[in-house]
Amino acid sequence: MNGEWGEHCGLFGVYGHPESANLTYLGLYALQHRGQESAGIVSSDSQDLHSYRNMGLVSEVFTGDVLKRLPGRSSIGHVRYSTAGASDLKNSQPFTVHYARGGLAIAHNGNLTNAHMLRDELEAYGSIFQSTMDTETIIHLIARSHEHDLADRIIRALKQVEGAYCLLFLSEEEMIAVRDPHGFRPLVLGRQKNAYLVASETCAFDLIGAEFEREIEPGEMVIINEDGLHSFYPFIPVSPSHCVFEFIYFARPDSFIFGRNVYGVRRELGVQLGREHPAEADIVIPTPDSGFSAAIGYGHETKIPMELGLMRNHYVGRTFIEPKQSIRHFGVKIKLNPVKELIRGKGVAVVDDSIVRATTSRKIMKMIRKAGAEQIHVRISSPPITHPCFFGIDTPMRSELIASSHSIEEINRYITSDTLGYLSLEGLKRCVGEDNGSFCYACFSGGYPIKFPPRMGEAQLQLFEER
Amino acid sequence: MNGEWGEHCGLFGVYGHPESANLTYLGLYALQHRGQESAGIVSSDSQDLHSYRNMGLVSEVFTGDVLKRLPGRSSIGHVRYSTAGASDLKNSQPFTVHYARGGLAIAHNGNLTNAHMLRDELEAYGSIFQSTMDTETIIHLIARSHEHDLADRIIRALKQVEGAYCLLFLSEEEMIAVRDPHGFRPLVLGRQKNAYLVASETCAFDLIGAEFEREIEPGEMVIINEDGLHSFYPFIPVSPSHCVFEFIYFARPDSFIFGRNVYGVRRELGVQLGREHPAEADIVIPTPDSGFSAAIGYGHETKIPMELGLMRNHYVGRTFIEPKQSIRHFGVKIKLNPVKELIRGKGVAVVDDSIVRATTSRKIMKMIRKAGAEQIHVRISSPPITHPCFFGIDTPMRSELIASSHSIEEINRYITSDTLGYLSLEGLKRCVGEDNGSFCYACFSGGYPIKFPPRMGEAQLQLFEER
Amino acid sequence: MNGEWGEHCGLFGVYGHPESANLTYLGLYALQHRGQESAGIVSSDSQDLHSYRNMGLVSEVFTGDVLKRLPGRSSIGHVRYSTAGASDLKNSQPFTVHYARGGLAIAHNGNLTNAHMLRDELEAYGSIFQSTMDTETIIHLIARSHEHDLADRIIRALKQVEGAYCLLFLSEEEMIAVRDPHGFRPLVLGRQKNAYLVASETCAFDLIGAEFEREIEPGEMVIINEDGLHSFYPFIPVSPSHCVFEFIYFARPDSFIFGRNVYGVRRELGVQLGREHPAEADIVIPTPDSGFSAAIGYGHETKIPMELGLMRNHYVGRTFIEPKQSIRHFGVKIKLNPVKELIRGKGVAVVDDSIVRATTSRKIMKMIRKAGAEQIHVRISSPPITHPCFFGIDTPMRSELIASSHSIEEINRYITSDTLGYLSLEGLKRCVGEDNGSFCYACFSGGYPIKFPPRMGEAQLQLFEER
Amino acid sequence: MNGEWGEHCGLFGVYGHPESANLTYLGLYALQHRGQESAGIVSSDSQDLHSYRNMGLVSEVFTGDVLKRLPGRSSIGHVRYSTAGASDLKNSQPFTVHYARGGLAIAHNGNLTNAHMLRDELEAYGSIFQSTMDTETIIHLIARSHEHDLADRIIRALKQVEGAYCLLFLSEEEMIAVRDPHGFRPLVLGRQKNAYLVASETCAFDLIGAEFEREIEPGEMVIINEDGLHSFYPFIPVSPSHCVFEFIYFARPDSFIFGRNVYGVRRELGVQLGREHPAEADIVIPTPDSGFSAAIGYGHETKIPMELGLMRNHYVGRTFIEPKQSIRHFGVKIKLNPVKELIRGKGVAVVDDSIVRATTSRKIMKMIRKAGAEQIHVRISSPPITHPCFFGIDTPMRSELIASSHSIEEINRYITSDTLGYLSLEGLKRCVGEDNGSFCYACFSGGYPIKFPPRMGEAQLQLFEER
Repeated sequence: MNGEWGEHCGLFGVYGHPESANLTYLGLYALQHRGQESAGIVSSDSQDLHSYRNMGLVSEVFTGDVLKRLPGRSSIGHVRYSTAGASDLKNSQPFTVHYARGGLAIAHNGNLTNAHMLRDELEAYGSIFQSTMDTETIIHLIARSHEHDLADRIIRALKQVEGAYCLLFLSEEEMIAVRDPHGFRPLVLGRQKNAYLVASETCAFDLIGAEFEREIEPGEMVIINEDGLHSFYPFIPVSPSHCVFEFIYFARPDSFIFGRNVYGVRRELGVQLGREHPAEADIVIPTPDSGFSAAIGYGHETKIPMELGLMRNHYVGRTFIEPKQSIRHFGVKIKLNPVKELIRGKGVAVVDDSIVRATTSRKIMKMIRKAGAEQIHVRISSPPITHPCFFGIDTPMRSELIASSHSIEEINRYITSDTLGYLSLEGLKRCVGEDNGSFCYACFSGGYPIKFPPRMGEAQLQLFEER
Repeated sequence: MNGEWGEHCGLFGVYGHPESANLTYLGLYALQHRGQESAGIVSSDSQDLHSYRNMGLVSEVFTGDVLKRLPGRSSIGHVRYSTAGASDLKNSQPFTVHYARGGLAIAHNGNLTNAHMLRDELEAYGSIFQSTMDTETIIHLIARSHEHDLADRIIRALKQVEGAYCLLFLSEEEMIAVRDPHGFRPLVLGRQKNAYLVASETCAFDLIGAEFEREIEPGEMVIINEDGLHSFYPFIPVSPSHCVFEFIYFARPDSFIFGRNVYGVRRELGVQLGREHPAEADIVIPTPDSGFSAAIGYGHETKIPMELGLMRNHYVGRTFIEPKQSIRHFGVKIKLNPVKELIRGKGVAVVDDSIVRATTSRKIMKMIRKAGAEQIHVRISSPPITHPCFFGIDTPMRSELIASSHSIEEINRYITSDTLGYLSLEGLKRCVGEDNGSFCYACFSGGYPIKFPPRMGEAQLQLFEER
Repeated sequence: MNGEWGEHCGLFGVYGHPESANLTYLGLYALQHRGQESAGIVSSDSQDLHSYRNMGLVSEVFTGDVLKRLPGRSSIGHVRYSTAGASDLKNSQPFTVHYARGGLAIAHNGNLTNAHMLRDELEAYGSIFQSTMDTETIIHLIARSHEHDLADRIIRALKQVEGAYCLLFLSEEEMIAVRDPHGFRPLVLGRQKNAYLVASETCAFDLIGAEFEREIEPGEMVIINEDGLHSFYPFIPVSPSHCVFEFIYFARPDSFIFGRNVYGVRRELGVQLGREHPAEADIVIPTPDSGFSAAIGYGHETKIPMELGLMRNHYVGRTFIEPKQSIRHFGVKIKLNPVKELIRGKGVAVVDDSIVRATTSRKIMKMIRKAGAEQIHVRISSPPITHPCFFGIDTPMRSELIASSHSIEEINRYITSDTLGYLSLEGLKRCVGEDNGSFCYACFSGGYPIKFPPRMGEAQLQLFEER
Repeated sequence: MNGEWGEHCGLFGVYGHPESANLTYLGLYALQHRGQESAGIVSSDSQDLHSYRNMGLVSEVFTGDVLKRLPGRSSIGHVRYSTAGASDLKNSQPFTVHYARGGLAIAHNGNLTNAHMLRDELEAYGSIFQSTMDTETIIHLIARSHEHDLADRIIRALKQVEGAYCLLFLSEEEMIAVRDPHGFRPLVLGRQKNAYLVASETCAFDLIGAEFEREIEPGEMVIINEDGLHSFYPFIPVSPSHCVFEFIYFARPDSFIFGRNVYGVRRELGVQLGREHPAEADIVIPTPDSGFSAAIGYGHETKIPMELGLMRNHYVGRTFIEPKQSIRHFGVKIKLNPVKELIRGKGVAVVDDSIVRATTSRKIMKMIRKAGAEQIHVRISSPPITHPCFFGIDTPMRSELIASSHSIEEINRYITSDTLGYLSLEGLKRCVGEDNGSFCYACFSGGYPIKFPPRMGEAQLQLFEER
């Protein structure tokens, strides 16, 4: 469901291109859906690192003037939504430090599960943290490491952390990309002539006309410097746990990740949903834009014609002034408006990708009912979300997830629909081609692939207490 | 075709609501698709007019602080794309003046065909124009009029102008709405409790939870003041000439104008297009977002499944920094990206609403071809555009309209498609319910419903020269 | 007294220099003391006028980027403090219009006494005013004039206005400077190589290294175009009425106006003040910076040593946040601080140029007393101000001028000084070399050199009512 | 000489006032002359520290909105000119960190002479520095200290540093002020009702109407918390070395520091200068504003009348656009303009406080000569500067100090004056009441009161190399 999930982060890096900052800007632009809160780029001109980051969309943060101040043939960039650490400029990334051995920038997509424990320890020994991000822990571990090579220090540091991470490092001389052994988040490798590119999703390569080479593997470390590209596997291998929600909601439909095209998977979820939960409806209506791909599959499978019954306002900004004399369902109306002439007197099947808190779904269904729908059948292209995520998605606490404490029938009554059908976990597994256990379904099942540390930071303990 | 048409303008007005500026802000927000260049609101607190306007989107121009400085129970607002007059703050609207009889604000959607002639005359008698907008001509005519009532002065002034206009006037005491006798542009009347509302489209009423009352008629003048609402028909009646392109492209699909819901009409154009030009294709792909509604109708009629083969980047800002080492089809890629895995090896029918210059279409087709399409069948849900518009749409000069000088087959070759099919003018007329000649089809036929003045301003003459 | 007088305006113009806008920027910079509210420059590149103006100091309004957008070999500029017309961007100057015969920019220093009357008349005939400035009246008179030459139209227009004006006009082809027949405000002519320069004061020439040629005479019109410089005297001559307050307070001490160096005159006022009102004091303290020049003369004449007993804060900005728990004499303290160790136990003679409302003087004297002064003798280097100015200085209404309703002894008691001495009108006249009646002393005597029109605009009537 | 000395820093702190941030804002305002590059305030509301700092003047950095976001009864503030560490936001102060034991803010006036050495050591052990300021070294030393009390940790840290420092610390619970044992920089203590205040100079107390209590002693640590004020002397005492240049140039004339009023000392320097170097001159001209106080003393002693022969432009901003066709002595003209009518044909004695590089002096003398001076006698109220400062003043490297390599006669020729007289070191000592060796004269004598460490950071080594 649009706007109910906290989005997370996107990464982009270039090594060996005369316009590396410009390309990174474009790459971040294509990854904007992964984080709209802040954006940043660090470039290296072999001598120094140059950095700029600010709150806002990529197109707001970077102007031609700013990009000119980011010279050099290597750059890494980051778009962010607050996963861990409060919303604040100092928590934006890439995070740059100058320590004993020179400058180092880091960009992180994911979430460390033992960051608070490590931080307490580091601070006890006198380390001073600049931000509240778990990412900074990695930097301090690197600074305290005594290995000679940067890569070795990074490996030493990462062996102490647990959780989900795709990381991009930039020093004056090299760019290093690392994906955690579970491979929670996607990370892909590309080429444009002599330049190497790394990105969270392939759609970033398409925009700049680069070639997609391959995915970076779980547990792989890629070092790119003037000697070319070198690949290492420094960690003990574990079975992969790709985040299935990247397929369901996060990634862009035109991206290729985890071995599949996202649109194809998402459409198939709709087809499977149609098989599991057909509806007695005159028309299928997608919830724009998150329900579009699944609605197409659903319509195809059920032979119910899809119509654009909800129109989306494309100009929604981040702040909005609401009149004091409050308008019914205002928050939803500012984004969506039903086509009354189309809906009136019809039975409608409304297709969306997921339900989190259900408050928005309830408002939408009431709005559709007011537009004259005779019957409303809600169809969700993923199973009920019962558990929070600790691997890089900013889900609400468990108590706020409606499916953690309510039956499907209770949710159906709450959102005022006539019928409600969720995709089954088995159906989901079938669609993503699950025959080898390579995905993480913890948010649907509670089966977390990583054991949590005995002592956790307060913030996370709070999340766990309720279980 | 998105972005090839200059959009025009949107109007919104409120009389008799304690939060009139806030409601106007929301109304403009819903009308943002009609003009993204500038936005403005003028409010009246019975004593004075308060004004704020600036370049930018509604959400950028208006903050809570700005809205607080617009007190009073009546307000009019305007969003603008440059129809006539260069892009500049002083050409943004509403346009406010203080003349001998008090303050007066005016907001205009449309284009006057004899504005230059009138302006030359007024300047010769010593009038000083602040802007290059044709709208200002109306203000000077009002200022020179000696009638006693504001309404009478407006009528006297409007009897001298020709062309397309929906106008909203606001004085300290009253709000006046006028629609030209041909009714080129839509204008609708609404109510929210005791307040009267006027808007370009009904979607503005939906957002604020107001009731749609009726359309304001061609040639009608509506005066709203403390005595309530009064309707007049001060002009000699002519047969109406509604702009059919509002149905094809401009208006929002969820709006109701010219007696119909826009989505319904647009979907029907797709059905008719399917009847006239079926295709040997595996999938139907809409050009987002302008081709969506017609693609649904086309898919329904031809039984070819519609798929989302082109993904739109929703974060496109107004400025964009392109790398020096230019990327192929960059301008299109920043907005659209094909889903390669879906398109590869398929025959695709690409549905769009119109072709203007064809340069963008050509880039899109090349991009789809590169993504692996076997065959490309372009289907356009309107007839070829052969003539420029002089009634409020910022079309290019005739020489830039590809269909004015090229056959359909030549266009097909230029945009590199395998086949190209346009909706017929007869098909279009059938879909919009044309049995009484109430629409303007001049851009397809050259049959302009207004005679142009013998002496025109230079800018317009230039446009006409080439016929 | 610093800050009690509304400052007025400054003019600068260049004809025939490749960097005309840059020079104008520098000229305005040197004239910043004449107006800190807004600044503007209009340049001509022979084809078009280019304009930029904004609220703020010259150094804030103009950046290198802005100056680059003002091309051409001729420019006029203006700094402004609100003389007539509210404080607002649209009231900033130069004021530019495009009327029937092309573009025209105007910059004005002074105040027209019959502007309201003319404006009412023009509006009755349909002229629409963009601003509330009296200057705009001149533009409308020019626009309605039917003479062929710009100069003739300007003369025709100016023959209808009364009051004080130094004017700079800029069209695409020429720059015209006019000084009113009374010569209220200063206006000087300079040369830099082939370029002609016009400025309010000579200090503007010094900054750019230009030569001061001569003053422009009362009633003189200077036309500068590609044929060179031409001088005309189109008005009926009257005896001059130079504003004596330019000598007392407004002009910069290093300027040469009305045939004299300002510092020299101001110092002489101090000498004369010492003759008329010696004091039993240990030290002379100037009120920085307005009392400096006179204090030097006063100390010289009385042989009392001058000391810097009041220190000025040079970083005073325009807005200031005062704590809620208000501090005694806060408004004065933010600008001035006494040197306690110097003042303690002394008899001090405090020298200032004038007293307007006396509220600031009262605060200063209390502050000096608190610093430990035994006796305070206030000495003012001009006579008591009893009447408002209508010729370009923004004095308060008569009721607010303390000397209009209070005796010198009453003022002495109010400001809490031990003795108070004003320079006599005769003494003032002697110092400025008055043997030919060429100065205006109306603010001291009420003898206005221009008859006011029988019917005045409301704003001015209000000022006059109280007499 | 104005603008040739890098100014340094100013401190202000409040403990126990409901409007602590507002008072700090005002205090910094009064100390603006000590640093115009950046300003910052950190407040404590007992629970958290709140911080705001930015580049710019105090009045530009702090608005009412910003101050509202700095709640609490304690605040410390800082104005800065770059002493050490490049000009950059991250080098502005107060510097705030959150480390293992809570939040801590620090504001520093001075310069540490062994900071680079300590920093190298800390980084080798894994500390990560956020800035290039020497101040941050102190924070890291505190973070690594294992004492229980904050005060003890500060003492432990400061025992490792050498150089000049006045420090203000703010934690959630207490404010701590420390002055280094040499007492290089001034630091004063004040009261306002129940609140304690600390400032660099007393002029900050005057503005807010607070009482000056006493100076904080060299080597004293003052701890202010809810138990009141406690004073400690934790360092081994050394003989004091007050910076004599605070008297000569830095401090505001109305301040009281090192036991004296600054204006009084400065005036006395002028008297002594008159005794040592009288001149055959008609008038004495101060270089505004740095030479004012001494010029008064000089004129008094020599009986030569002081006149304001150089006028200062009070609106000089930080950036200035110079025309391409460069103007002679432009840089000086933008600040100063001679009064030609006054100077012409005269012998003038120009009084200033010091000469650093002499390039500005040369331009001024040429300008005065061009204005018509017959003879120019330059008189400087301090001895020749031959050595750089390492205790908090940003002097140029030794090679740029003209007096380090040129005789007085050579300087006289360079600046084109007829005679040049410097105050003698003995004269200076007599004026500041030197009978107990309590001042630092190193910049005149090279007698640095602190031994420099054997290994220094590169930046400083560079400065020392040339000796």
